[in-house]
Amino acid sequence: MSALLVQLEAIVGPRGILSGVDVASRSCDPFDHVPPASAAILRPASTEELSRIVALCHAAGQPLVMHGGRTGVAGGALAGADELVISLERMARVIAVDPVGGTLTVEAGATIAAVQAAAAEHGLLYPIDLGSKGSATVGGTISTNAGGNRVIRWGMTRHNVLGLEAVLADGTVVSALNTFLKNNTGYDLKQMFIGSEGTLGIVAQAVLRLVPAPSSQNLALVSLRSYDDVLALLGRARQMQHLSAFEVMWQDYYGFVSGHDPTRRPLAPDAPFTVLIETMGQDEAADSKAFENCLAQAHEAGLILDAVMASSGKQIADLWRVREGSEVLVRHMSPFLSFDISVDIRRADDFVEATRAALKERFGTCRMVSFGHLADSNIHIGVHIGPDTLTRATQIEACVYGLVARFGGALTAEHGIGMTKRDFLPQHVTPTALATMRRLRDALDPDRLLNRSVLF
Amino acid sequence: MSALLVQLEAIVGPRGILSGVDVASRSCDPFDHVPPASAAILRPASTEELSRIVALCHAAGQPLVMHGGRTGVAGGALAGADELVISLERMARVIAVDPVGGTLTVEAGATIAAVQAAAAEHGLLYPIDLGSKGSATVGGTISTNAGGNRVIRWGMTRHNVLGLEAVLADGTVVSALNTFLKNNTGYDLKQMFIGSEGTLGIVAQAVLRLVPAPSSQNLALVSLRSYDDVLALLGRARQMQHLSAFEVMWQDYYGFVSGHDPTRRPLAPDAPFTVLIETMGQDEAADSKAFENCLAQAHEAGLILDAVMASSGKQIADLWRVREGSEVLVRHMSPFLSFDISVDIRRADDFVEATRAALKERFGTCRMVSFGHLADSNIHIGVHIGPDTLTRATQIEACVYGLVARFGGALTAEHGIGMTKRDFLPQHVTPTALATMRRLRDALDPDRLLNRSVLF
Repeated sequence: MSALLVQLEAIVGPRGILSGVDVASRSCDPFDHVPPASAAILRPASTEELSRIVALCHAAGQPLVMHGGRTGVAGGALAGADELVISLERMARVIAVDPVGGTLTVEAGATIAAVQAAAAEHGLLYPIDLGSKGSATVGGTISTNAGGNRVIRWGMTRHNVLGLEAVLADGTVVSALNTFLKNNTGYDLKQMFIGSEGTLGIVAQAVLRLVPAPSSQNLALVSLRSYDDVLALLGRARQMQHLSAFEVMWQDYYGFVSGHDPTRRPLAPDAPFTVLIETMGQDEAADSKAFENCLAQAHEAGLILDAVMASSGKQIADLWRVREGSEVLVRHMSPFLSFDISVDIRRADDFVEATRAALKERFGTCRMVSFGHLADSNIHIGVHIGPDTLTRATQIEACVYGLVARFGGALTAEHGIGMTKRDFLPQHVTPTALATMRRLRDALDPDRLLNRSVLF
Repeated sequence: MSALLVQLEAIVGPRGILSGVDVASRSCDPFDHVPPASAAILRPASTEELSRIVALCHAAGQPLVMHGGRTGVAGGALAGADELVISLERMARVIAVDPVGGTLTVEAGATIAAVQAAAAEHGLLYPIDLGSKGSATVGGTISTNAGGNRVIRWGMTRHNVLGLEAVLADGTVVSALNTFLKNNTGYDLKQMFIGSEGTLGIVAQAVLRLVPAPSSQNLALVSLRSYDDVLALLGRARQMQHLSAFEVMWQDYYGFVSGHDPTRRPLAPDAPFTVLIETMGQDEAADSKAFENCLAQAHEAGLILDAVMASSGKQIADLWRVREGSEVLVRHMSPFLSFDISVDIRRADDFVEATRAALKERFGTCRMVSFGHLADSNIHIGVHIGPDTLTRATQIEACVYGLVARFGGALTAEHGIGMTKRDFLPQHVTPTALATMRRLRDALDPDRLLNRSVLF
């Protein structure tokens, strides 16, 4: 064990440091087993321990990689042999819940599921909802500004964080554990740490905003004939109280998933578009009536080819499974590349068509699936061009991201840049914006010790 | 005219520069006539002109003060003789409205009222609502992260800005005119410029988020016996669809305002608390029913002493006038100091009582009025201790802000630090947080040329 590791262990104790097989058995990737190449994983038990180990690493010029729940898909958790990993898995306490103010104070290693459970005890909800919520942590979701399924109703992670405590690259603890909805006392420092992928500081604690837990949920899956009809339905759906999801599946996605898994086929697989609409509110009778009226009027207007409405919690879960069919893709479409972009809602179908055409022209055969949270501009695309899909990843990415840039879209809507999209960042932000990002990073971490390989 | 002013005029043209009486006739303060002491006010007509004049001033080491609508109450617009003023009043175009994406792109000199008018043409709303919206500008409200009356429904300005273009202290244009609800492409630079009171850059354009214009508005004024009852009513009100305001007036405020102006007296003036409750939604029938049910149940539970409900637009305006009675304060309580703080909702009444007691003990006689947007923790307090109120301002502020700190409150909820609260900032943020703010300011404006006298 190196002299530095001995000093670090003196701070965090024997339980606070993992090495050997304990490191090798862990993965930095949610789909493959890719262990960190690091000599050790440091697991501080308090902000104070975290601060001390970071200060020690800073003095030694030791680069660090942060681990949350390791559910990210942009390579942000990958760690090399000359890097040490820090995990906050021993800092996972829910410190306080204030049901009157609607806030929850928590250590950053807690999972989103644990936060939701603590909020539910008070009839409250932490509204960030992700498939990976059982593993994804408060710290990880803050540093990536995680989105998920209910962004149109409650916003991204950024909108649900009131305060935080962060440790800077030199070990300085910056405590800004604001609990108020309104606080303009100087710069809002937490905004620096949210979404900066762990490059400006390590989130140690956070104050999260809670909302009243919805008591009503209405959900339907509908088939539509054209993209114009999808937009017309979106316009109507937005007039509804508490629209919480408007998820669009192109036929390429819905046909593929429902074709391979009959339990995911509540509607015929050949409609050009299949849309999941959901509202969540506080008034069961009024919400149901508004939902049914909206669908009835859309049907009368000729927008809807076919529809199925959920009338139980089981049916709600079953319809969401249609939209969350990535396990079908993994089983039947691998290897594939996935994309997470935002694009002007009015042109999303044009973008999908242009992408399909460009990939076909460039690579001959190509399977593509398209789906996403359309109401917030975010679509996901899966691309398979054959067994060499991964070895030709850069070419495929260049093709797709070139079109994203041409359509004025965003390189990543919610997954982040990480390492996997780093090379494409300069194409998607202006040179002065990138230079300003560098100035901020240089101001807070001039030695590039925190997550040095992500972003830029 | 100095050589620098001649060069500046060459960029902005004769209409782009004001001097002499045109400067002296303008005020930096919304209540008094306090003209800038500056030799000139620069009025660029485009981002490019703005960039060029800022670059020229940077090269000359010329400090600048930004003017928006000059409605701020924290002294942020005050300008000295060695400073030049920049106003974006000639950059006030609404550039584009996208009704499908729900966005509006605008130059920063446009007023909030102009933005709301442009949004209304598409059945949409820009939800930041301020008494000063006819004068307050997009740029000013972004740089102060303005709040207002509907924060519990739609958030602060920060939550309603999707993208912006800013000019840095050296004239660099940083363009990040994002139009998407979801975009994690690198650092979210706009967050740096929002709420930093013009010290990190000058907002030139912005992309604002629009929401569907509400079609229903329900409003009532109710009297309550105790602060516990206020909290109980708040708990019930939060269960309502689309609660948009929950404004609390302590008896000291309501009794004073309604006593001096009988047109502001819809309820007897002696109840300990008077609360304005409002919902805004999309479903008139359901919203009215939910609102009436909520009040009826609160009445049955014995929470409500008396109530009046608005049943017309005129009555809605009249009840809001009760809450917005600052003109009565100006007429009958001057001179007074006003405070804009956040405090733990559970302890807000304790804070008000402690403040009143401390002021009485310290200054003998004291008139105090307390009111605010309680549901988001924000209360406003007006204090008059006699004719020497303003000359003893620092002592009064020290007394109030000392209690704010003791209660763990926020020095300013929505008005900002500006110049008036600058001396109190170190008492209300941690030393490392303040040091981090300085690092960021030094990184982007090392010469302190932008709004050098505000914040710290």
